[in-house]
Amino acid sequence: MRAWRLVEDEPAEPQPGPERPRAVGRYLVVAAVMLVGLVGAGGLAAAQTGMFAERPDGCAQPDRSVQLYAVELPKDGTQTRIGYGLTPETASYPGPLMEMMEGECLAITLHNLVPEATLAALRTNPSHPLGVSLHVHGVKYTQESDGTVQSGSYVPPGGSRTYTWYAQPRNTKTGAQGTAGYWWYHDHVVGGPHGTQGLAAGLFGGLVVRRPGDPKPDRTYTVVFGNQQSINLRRGAAIDTCAEVDPQPGPTCMVARMGERVEFVVVGAGNDMHTFHLHGHSWADTRTGVVSNGQPLADSVPIIDTKVLGPAQTFGVSVVAGESVGPGHWMLHCHMQFHSDAGMSTMLHVLDGNGNMPPGMDHQHAAAAPAAAAAPATDDGTHVHN
Amino acid sequence: MRAWRLVEDEPAEPQPGPERPRAVGRYLVVAAVMLVGLVGAGGLAAAQTGMFAERPDGCAQPDRSVQLYAVELPKDGTQTRIGYGLTPETASYPGPLMEMMEGECLAITLHNLVPEATLAALRTNPSHPLGVSLHVHGVKYTQESDGTVQSGSYVPPGGSRTYTWYAQPRNTKTGAQGTAGYWWYHDHVVGGPHGTQGLAAGLFGGLVVRRPGDPKPDRTYTVVFGNQQSINLRRGAAIDTCAEVDPQPGPTCMVARMGERVEFVVVGAGNDMHTFHLHGHSWADTRTGVVSNGQPLADSVPIIDTKVLGPAQTFGVSVVAGESVGPGHWMLHCHMQFHSDAGMSTMLHVLDGNGNMPPGMDHQHAAAAPAAAAAPATDDGTHVHN
Amino acid sequence: MRAWRLVEDEPAEPQPGPERPRAVGRYLVVAAVMLVGLVGAGGLAAAQTGMFAERPDGCAQPDRSVQLYAVELPKDGTQTRIGYGLTPETASYPGPLMEMMEGECLAITLHNLVPEATLAALRTNPSHPLGVSLHVHGVKYTQESDGTVQSGSYVPPGGSRTYTWYAQPRNTKTGAQGTAGYWWYHDHVVGGPHGTQGLAAGLFGGLVVRRPGDPKPDRTYTVVFGNQQSINLRRGAAIDTCAEVDPQPGPTCMVARMGERVEFVVVGAGNDMHTFHLHGHSWADTRTGVVSNGQPLADSVPIIDTKVLGPAQTFGVSVVAGESVGPGHWMLHCHMQFHSDAGMSTMLHVLDGNGNMPPGMDHQHAAAAPAAAAAPATDDGTHVHN
Repeated sequence: MRAWRLVEDEPAEPQPGPERPRAVGRYLVVAAVMLVGLVGAGGLAAAQTGMFAERPDGCAQPDRSVQLYAVELPKDGTQTRIGYGLTPETASYPGPLMEMMEGECLAITLHNLVPEATLAALRTNPSHPLGVSLHVHGVKYTQESDGTVQSGSYVPPGGSRTYTWYAQPRNTKTGAQGTAGYWWYHDHVVGGPHGTQGLAAGLFGGLVVRRPGDPKPDRTYTVVFGNQQSINLRRGAAIDTCAEVDPQPGPTCMVARMGERVEFVVVGAGNDMHTFHLHGHSWADTRTGVVSNGQPLADSVPIIDTKVLGPAQTFGVSVVAGESVGPGHWMLHCHMQFHSDAGMSTMLHVLDGNGNMPPGMDHQHAAAAPAAAAAPATDDGTHVHN
Repeated sequence: MRAWRLVEDEPAEPQPGPERPRAVGRYLVVAAVMLVGLVGAGGLAAAQTGMFAERPDGCAQPDRSVQLYAVELPKDGTQTRIGYGLTPETASYPGPLMEMMEGECLAITLHNLVPEATLAALRTNPSHPLGVSLHVHGVKYTQESDGTVQSGSYVPPGGSRTYTWYAQPRNTKTGAQGTAGYWWYHDHVVGGPHGTQGLAAGLFGGLVVRRPGDPKPDRTYTVVFGNQQSINLRRGAAIDTCAEVDPQPGPTCMVARMGERVEFVVVGAGNDMHTFHLHGHSWADTRTGVVSNGQPLADSVPIIDTKVLGPAQTFGVSVVAGESVGPGHWMLHCHMQFHSDAGMSTMLHVLDGNGNMPPGMDHQHAAAAPAAAAAPATDDGTHVHN
Repeated sequence: MRAWRLVEDEPAEPQPGPERPRAVGRYLVVAAVMLVGLVGAGGLAAAQTGMFAERPDGCAQPDRSVQLYAVELPKDGTQTRIGYGLTPETASYPGPLMEMMEGECLAITLHNLVPEATLAALRTNPSHPLGVSLHVHGVKYTQESDGTVQSGSYVPPGGSRTYTWYAQPRNTKTGAQGTAGYWWYHDHVVGGPHGTQGLAAGLFGGLVVRRPGDPKPDRTYTVVFGNQQSINLRRGAAIDTCAEVDPQPGPTCMVARMGERVEFVVVGAGNDMHTFHLHGHSWADTRTGVVSNGQPLADSVPIIDTKVLGPAQTFGVSVVAGESVGPGHWMLHCHMQFHSDAGMSTMLHVLDGNGNMPPGMDHQHAAAAPAAAAAPATDDGTHVHN
């Protein structure tokens, strides 16, 4: 734990990390990353000494560890881009989808590879400390893992810090409500006390916490609606690979076969309101997007195909691709007209059972899906489909 | 099916319809409409040949057919107005309320009577095709009925096209969630790939899909909150008939007797957020606006009297007029203050059991309900109350 | 009842109240207030004569009476401030939290102590009447208690009027949905027909209606998100007492001990959308913020930590302070980035079981909680915790 107490003690004058060589090519990567892996130490001592707790109750020992890297990506025009990655080379925005089961405790060590000068340029107030952080929604974490300036839980340039997330389960005896749901994680420090510049740069990603018995998706896509009306969500290294004639699943290409269960992790970011709409499909407005039939109140649950989305709001949509409606290019867009007109629109490409797109209208695809359209990124790394 | 394959093959150069005489008077109506009624043909063949499916699964044969007309209405100042109507003479905005039961399959033949020049003037890009369409929310439809440019499923000036909507029922075995709910239909083509100019002109209407056992309304009103802060929803031909002293139900006059169940189909359109509020009444935030008592989770359901509404979001509010609170002029308004101040406010007039409004404050009615206030249109045609 | 019929008869020329002495010091208070306490008379007669009902059905006799005062407070810069108070001296914005049990009927006599000149200066139209009112959400009230101009149910300067609120219970036989929930009350008259200037001045407060069996909070805080992005909710007389080192519960200081149930009454006001977010805690998206385990549909209920909030929308959030996450300074903020950056951010200070804040990061508190941050007001007066 000592490693990051140093960080807290000197927030305005962070310790410089090891010399950062300038990356050649696409990424700005620190060659040597000093991993700080003190997972599992100190929590009880902190509680006993009256310090802030290091670990959430119920998480004496993390079940799993993940390394996460904050990396500067090539600019989009004048917009600085920073992404999270499970390796420095695969950093992207949104970052990798994280998946947990209720009951699981996850230790994530964040390595800040972003050049100090980049963070300084994004700062809105010269007294604001330089660093990146990991703030998460939905799961349990102590102040040590809050990812905020006032708790000192951020990572200066070149540094590392381990954040602990606990997917607290429902508990009938204690009344704990559980943490299963669709969430996100993001920076809370870059530029100012709410991480607004970090979010604008791309420091965010989706998180799903599942409960035993939840429907299992065949494919999961993270879709983020942000400030720019023509938002363009791509991985850092990815090129838009969504072919018009024979689209195949890829970082920015949402594809599913008929009958597959497709799950969208929908995230709002920035300042604006949006309305998420998917053509031809609908879902139950519940935790998982489905509701079991035959239950007493199942008839009371709204079925919807459009849902309001505000900044930091997250929800999950789960549909069976093409159910009843068949294959095709199904639009997914913000239904605020000025947003969709500005390009906040993309497609779910539903292939037939053989993995082919029926011919007939592929040539018209481009008309409604401009190159600048909202292209969501798929997950990777921690995401395993069963 | 061939009839509209022609349309798809030449989207940029639509076939002109029969000579369109200029309407004298209130409507611009095509004198002779060539009805295209190929309902029921071709679906299976398309599926077998690998074409996009014509019909949703479960809808081998439509149960009912409807003719729908897109008609230019007199301008509101400089704003072009276009409405849908069950006849050309009754076109309005919002268009007629559509009602379906779960399990029902509906074939709607849309006839585009809007002059080509009008559509051309609304176009934001000269390469965008001219036409109107029918895109629907909530129910099932194939790409042939998507109402979009990229699927070719729109109607050039003078043309017709049949759209098939399937109110897929809940199914315990397959897990289908059902399509009962409050929805809307709208153009997706006029002006640009998202139909923004068509929506602004008035090409939208409400849709209710009911499930056996749902509460039966005595009166249903469609209320649309759109872009203009002083939105004025009137039928094309209707004059605001809402008398202050003795209001009677009419196109723009929401009236109910004490104890009647009043259902509002609430629709958001355009770019803005709103909050729907009704004085003196509240409802359960469920699919139908009610929740049965005595059920295990009934106590968990929020009871509300204000609900956020975003573009393309739709919901149903069902209340018993005057229950506990008595007759009177009950305000219904957007609770964003600058919207209500700009006139986005109207009244639900609740009469006593004899159909009379008790005297006492009629003279003050006008003060809070300016002539420019939001006046919803009632439904007609397909709407039958039991 | 006669006392306020006079008011209704002359809305544009209100009766001046007794001579209002100019308050010395902090409040502008009427020295002598003529209480009008006609609670309990007239309702049946009105119904029989065809007048608008005075009382909601089920509320023949109020169970409880409250006096409420509308009082001008010192200006915030150029912004006129008016608050409601259970006494003139304790007027504040938000006003006192009102709490009711389902089944209860409450008579609230509002005394308008606001100088006529103040109301005249806020008027947007010279023909608009001068007065303040009490409009309430969620509970049942007749047109006599609507608080609107068109119903004549407002209070001219110096006058008084009794409003009757009925927390109608669920009723299995009649189908009544009940009124338990999180609501608010506010002026609907100052400045214009929707009370926009009254709301901007501070004439609003929270209301909770409880149902037997609902979880009992240890502490309740009212949090209002309004127009100004740096909204500052303080009682009129309170000074921000939220110490950084040893914060104690106070009008603008949200504090709880580990394990206490903290209830937030969250209210939207004005024109803007917001997203309410609380760090480290989450809740069920139900009427009370909790859902009982072991019930058939409990797994379908979304668990959230961020909720969209529009003007006049209200909801309740109920959390166990520090559960699993421990003590600390837990941020509560609007997650629209430009709102939080502008100061719409505050803290829930969770103390340990002994009522102490563990040391370690208090010195960094100020960085993220500027003095101008959103500081909610606690309730008083009618608020009794069990």
